[in-house]
Order: sequence, then structure tokens, then C-alpha cells
Amino acid sequence: MNIFSVKSLHDAKSIILSEHNTIALQPESVHLLESHGRIAAETLYSPVDIPAFNRSTVDGYAVKSREVMGASESVPSILTLNKEVMMGENAASPLKSGEAIYVPTGGMLPEGADGMVMIEHTEILDEQTLLIKKPVAYGENITYRGDDLKENDAILKTGEKISAYDMGVLAGVGIGWIKVFEKIKVAVLSTGDEIIDYDQEPKTGQIRDINGYTLSGASIACGGQVVYKALIKDDFEALRGALDHAVHTADIVILSGGSSVGTRDFTYAAIESFESGEILLHGISVKPGKPTIVGKIDGKMVFGLPGHPAASAIIFEILVKPYIEMCQMKAPGAIKIDAKLTTNLHAAPGKDTFVMATLHRENGINYATPIHGKSGLMTVLTKAAGYIQITSEQEGLYKDQDVEVTLLREVTR
Amino acid sequence: MNIFSVKSLHDAKSIILSEHNTIALQPESVHLLESHGRIAAETLYSPVDIPAFNRSTVDGYAVKSREVMGASESVPSILTLNKEVMMGENAASPLKSGEAIYVPTGGMLPEGADGMVMIEHTEILDEQTLLIKKPVAYGENITYRGDDLKENDAILKTGEKISAYDMGVLAGVGIGWIKVFEKIKVAVLSTGDEIIDYDQEPKTGQIRDINGYTLSGASIACGGQVVYKALIKDDFEALRGALDHAVHTADIVILSGGSSVGTRDFTYAAIESFESGEILLHGISVKPGKPTIVGKIDGKMVFGLPGHPAASAIIFEILVKPYIEMCQMKAPGAIKIDAKLTTNLHAAPGKDTFVMATLHRENGINYATPIHGKSGLMTVLTKAAGYIQITSEQEGLYKDQDVEVTLLREVTR
Repeated sequence: MNIFSVKSLHDAKSIILSEHNTIALQPESVHLLESHGRIAAETLYSPVDIPAFNRSTVDGYAVKSREVMGASESVPSILTLNKEVMMGENAASPLKSGEAIYVPTGGMLPEGADGMVMIEHTEILDEQTLLIKKPVAYGENITYRGDDLKENDAILKTGEKISAYDMGVLAGVGIGWIKVFEKIKVAVLSTGDEIIDYDQEPKTGQIRDINGYTLSGASIACGGQVVYKALIKDDFEALRGALDHAVHTADIVILSGGSSVGTRDFTYAAIESFESGEILLHGISVKPGKPTIVGKIDGKMVFGLPGHPAASAIIFEILVKPYIEMCQMKAPGAIKIDAKLTTNLHAAPGKDTFVMATLHRENGINYATPIHGKSGLMTVLTKAAGYIQITSEQEGLYKDQDVEVTLLREVTR
Repeated sequence: MNIFSVKSLHDAKSIILSEHNTIALQPESVHLLESHGRIAAETLYSPVDIPAFNRSTVDGYAVKSREVMGASESVPSILTLNKEVMMGENAASPLKSGEAIYVPTGGMLPEGADGMVMIEHTEILDEQTLLIKKPVAYGENITYRGDDLKENDAILKTGEKISAYDMGVLAGVGIGWIKVFEKIKVAVLSTGDEIIDYDQEPKTGQIRDINGYTLSGASIACGGQVVYKALIKDDFEALRGALDHAVHTADIVILSGGSSVGTRDFTYAAIESFESGEILLHGISVKPGKPTIVGKIDGKMVFGLPGHPAASAIIFEILVKPYIEMCQMKAPGAIKIDAKLTTNLHAAPGKDTFVMATLHRENGINYATPIHGKSGLMTVLTKAAGYIQITSEQEGLYKDQDVEVTLLREVTR
């Protein structure tokens, strides 16, 4: 008995994202060199000031700026040379009045100095005497202690994906091990009597599993790991058994329906047959993707996606991915490219319509061209750069209208 | 002796990209489920037609379209019911004249049928008789054999990064193992007496290795693996020894200079000291990043990047990454976002200037704001969304000018 009414995309998202307590991903420690692309499970604060000392940004001479005021080619300031500060060693004694001390780029400024004269504006007259031919302003060519990072500044926040640049800064402050969220464990079940695995030879009427691999890849792209992947016949007991195993091994179950009419009813019944089973959502006003079922068993979310490759991919992107991101405490979102639409696009109002599109660039302008193709073509996904959303309030979009294309792959130029 | 003149960015790129025969990455076979994000080392063609048979896109009845021409609610066409085609089983005998055969979504069309009437436009009168209340056009609601992919259509080309959607399509045509390029082996050497590793306590004047981790992460992001990472003192023999080990263990060596003035000379001399050593490039008219050295030892490229974190990151992005992509036979490029500049940006003509920038969006428009900061601040990299390039012909860019921001991280909205 289906007592659920079809929900809007907005309501469906709210229902799913209210399940923020269903699972708690555990943190695990990884070394910096293994951290690229992982999601931080803690906010990391700098334990130190960077730079840890006042540092020269040029090769040159540390001076007291007021002592070289007005210095010029014709009337240079004359200073006494003090011994060098070597990189990596302690700074020499404080800079005394009337003195200059050589400091290389990155070197530590001696106490008492407040300006760095670049070497090209100086001339060594003899072993002890330096001519300064250009004045410096107070603080010129100096990075002060803490200018880059101050102690307790946040470097990386919980939920952020660790980039190469984060790795560098973490190393720079002495953090070599980072708590990241364990990879969310995903079970991917493909249902339908007609579905066979890639390595089987299809008999007439059979098709190979497409969604199982697409959804596995999409889960991996979100930082997940596939811990259980199976093909399930249109059989209540088989599906129930697979779901039972799935919720015991994974954090989240993604099921894609065969095209068969019976499959969706089995999914519904199988979820409900668990004592802890609960249907959260049955049907959403999204095209493609209407026959989506979302439920919960033993506190684990079960996403029942449609059988058509494009439809299941869209529902993954708009409902499953935001859920995974929420579990990772990651800000939801995708890379979007602004583009002009090359054709009119009609859509029925009252539902959110998603249309795959290609992108091309001409004279500095991006153009998005919808991919028209019969429903169910899998190559639509590999041809598309991304998708365009037509919201439920819109009846369509017009040629030359500005649209956002949400990228499904890296689109480079 | 430096006989090299400073090269333009364009010339530097040409010199580096002409080294396409230096290394040949070997292909390795990976299973589909391990293939996400890897770079294809072969072009894969479909061994089959998809769909492999003419397929219904709806639940309904297969008919001969000319036999239901003019059918309507008031004057339905009357057809004889034949037994069903079950999903995954062979189609029943050919459709005879005057017959209709039930076919579910995805099911195989019986021979002789050329249209699918949706079930909602039909009515079963008795066990043998079906009323058709709406005509169908020839081919309506049918996906023909090969509509999606034809035998020998290219699915994935050499050099393409494998996406979730590629994985699905490959599975769909029965390809479970894919030849991908082995991960390019990278040696990352950080030079400079003042550089210590993240786990050491800096004495005055010492700084922790930032570039080694940033460049490791950036290499991993390009599909590389770091096989050797070391800190090298400003010592000719130490550097030479490290380079020797690096070119024997890695495909490419990335070296970042300490800020010390001596380091660059050591790099130059160390490369030249190998019998097979060759300097390709010494100095490029790029800001930041001028003191870049590129050489070759035993046929392996050695990139000597500047010591400043932002400078070495920029040179990695504009010179090293394109080289790695060439080795992977990958189309070069990065994700770029169009934005309006929020301030004027001055630059010296005659060199390419790269400026880090943040991005924000307001009323559907992206704005890029340059990050002003003293040279050498590492946090510039973690604050930046990407960089703006001011070419050597431009003297600067103006407020409200349209610019391209090349993303250095995922920028989502």
C-alpha cells in the first residue's frame, strides 16, 4: 500500500537531509602524503606563527629606515657592514645604529632593523663600508612574524577536501598527520531479471549492468568506497537478503531498479519488511527520476533509483551526493559553468527537469547544447559535460538564455 | 657559465612539450571498479551494438503502426492479443497481422512490430482482444538496435580520464578490464640549508618544507605517484647524489629551490655535471617564477622550480602539469571560470604575470578579486580559488574586465 504522495525535489531534499544523524563517519589518521582529496574530520589550527620570525623578502641589507632617508645615487648613505646572517642560522647580534647587515631572501631580520635595501641599490666600498643609494620605507621588503598565519588561525576546516596547497601549508606549520573521515562504505545493488554482469554474454532481452558501475564510480568520486556490489533478480527474498547484507556491511545502500515494472514494488515491500524498515519517500516530481524510493533500514539510508542510466545518474547527483556530503560535513555543491543555451528547451511545469548538455566555447562565450536522445540511452552520459536544471516553476528555457551547467566531468580549456 | 637567455612562457612551453619522447608511460590493466580517475592508455571500441535488439521504451503493446492508424477513444482499433515477451527472455514469435504483443519497458520488440502503444492508451476487452485507443507513429517508443552505440564506435579514447559514466558504458558493452597508464613516478626534492621537514622543530632562521608537500599533492592530483621525496642541503655533492637517485627511480624530477641565492647555481651545475645532463631552459619571463631551470638527465626531465610557494605552484601548473599530461597523452587544460575583475591589476609588459584570486558570486555574476599579499606568503595558495594570467602583451587588466580564473581547487556553488 503506497500512502506516499509524489514529493517535490525541494521536499525530497529536505526529507533526506534531515537524516543527518543516521550515520557518523569515523575519523582516521592519514599522513600528509596520503591526504590529497580526503575530507578533513577536524578543524586544524596553526600551532605557530608563520613566519616564525621577521623575514626578508629580498637579497639585501637590513637597515634602520630612518638612517637611509634621502639616500640617492649622488648622495648615498654610508653605513658600517656587520657580519652576515646566514639562512638557517641565528640572526647576528642586533643591528646597531649606523650599521647594515646582509640578509638573503627568506633570511631573518636582525633585531633593530626595520627595512631591507635591495642589493642592487647598494655598493660595497670596502670591507667595512656600504653605500646605500636608495631609501627604504619602514617595513619595506619585510614579512613580519605571523603575517602569513598566526597561531590558532584555522588552516583547514572540518568537511574541507584537502588540496595540494593545504598539504603544503599543513607541513609548513608542522602538522604531518591529519584526521580525515573514513571513506563512506557504499553498497551498490542492481536489480532486474534482465540485468547481467559485464563478463556475461547477453541472451536476447538481457542487458549488462550499467548502473552498478556508474553508481560505484560516482560514489568513489564523492569519496566513498564500494564494499558490496551485487546483481539481484526480481525476487522478493533475494532482494530482502541482499538488503540485509548491505545494511550490515555498508553505511548507505544504493539500489537501481531494473526497467521491469515489478522491481519498484519489490523495493518498497522489501524495505518495509524489515522491523526497522521505513519508507521516507516514494516518487518525486523530477524528470527523469520520478520512480525514486528512499527508505531506511537499521538506520542506514536506502536509495532506490530508477533503472534508466541517465535517470539514476541524475538522482545520484541531486539526492545521494548531497547526503554523502552531509555525512562528510562537506559543503554541498558542484562546479557550475555559466553558458548560453543554443536552443529552446521545453519542460512541463510542476516538476524539476534535468537535461544533459554539451558545452563548447566560441569567442569567449560558453554555449550549452541539450543532448536530445531517446530516454534510456547510456551514451548520453558520456557525451554530456553536465546537466541543466529547469525548475518546477519554469515552463522551459529559451535560446540564448543564460543557464548554469553543473559539470559531471572535468571540462577543461 | 649561463649561456641561456630568459625565455618567454610560450617558448618555454614549446621547449618542454617538444620533449614528448623522453619517457613512455607503460600501460597497466585495471578492473573497472578500480578505474575511476585513471587515464586510458588505449582507445576502446564497442564490440557490440547497444541496444543489441530493438527495445521498447514504454510498458505497452507492440503493434504494426499502420494497423492502428486513426485509432481513437470512440473508434478504437481492435487487435488480437498474443502472449507476452518477458524481460530477459527471447521475444515471442513474430507479430502477425492484426496482433498486439505486450512488451514491458526495455523489453525486446517482436519481429514485424514497428510501434509501441503505451498501456494507458489500451484496454483489454477479453483474454484475446485488445482495444487500441490512440495511434502510434512508425518507430514510436522504440530504441533500435545500435541507436545508443554501434559496434566499433569509440567509447573511450587514449588520454581520457575515466569518469563514473565511462565506467557504466564500458560495463554495458562487456569491457571489464581497461589498460590505463601507470601513474607517472615523481621525485620531489626540496633544496635549501634552511629547509627542515614538518616533524622537526625549526631553529631560528629555519623553515619547514612547504613546496615538497604542495608539489607532491599537485603531482598526485595530475595522476602521479611520489616515489622519492627528500630535503637536500645547499651542497653540490648532496644535490648531485639526490638527482642521480631521482632519475634512476622516477620518470620526472621536481626540484624546488630554497630561497638561498646559491641554490639555483647548484641546480644548474648539478644537472650539467651528468654526462647525459642537459640544460633546456634557464630563466623564464614569468612573474612569479623567473628563476626556473629545466634540464634533462638520462632522458628524464628535471624541473627546477623557485623556492617561493606561490611561484613554485604556478610554475608547476603552467609547465610541469602540461608535461605530465603530454606523457599521459591527455589533452592539456584546466577548469576555467569566467569572472569580472573587481580591481585594476597592473603588470609589467614583456612577461606573463600570474595573480592568485578569490571568486565570489553575486546576482549570477562571478567576481574575481586578486589576492594582494607579500611575496612568499604560503596562505595565498589556500585562500585562492585559482589564478588569473596577464599575458606579456598586456600592461594590466581593468576593473570590470572579463577574465578567466583557472581553478586550483574545486569551487562549488
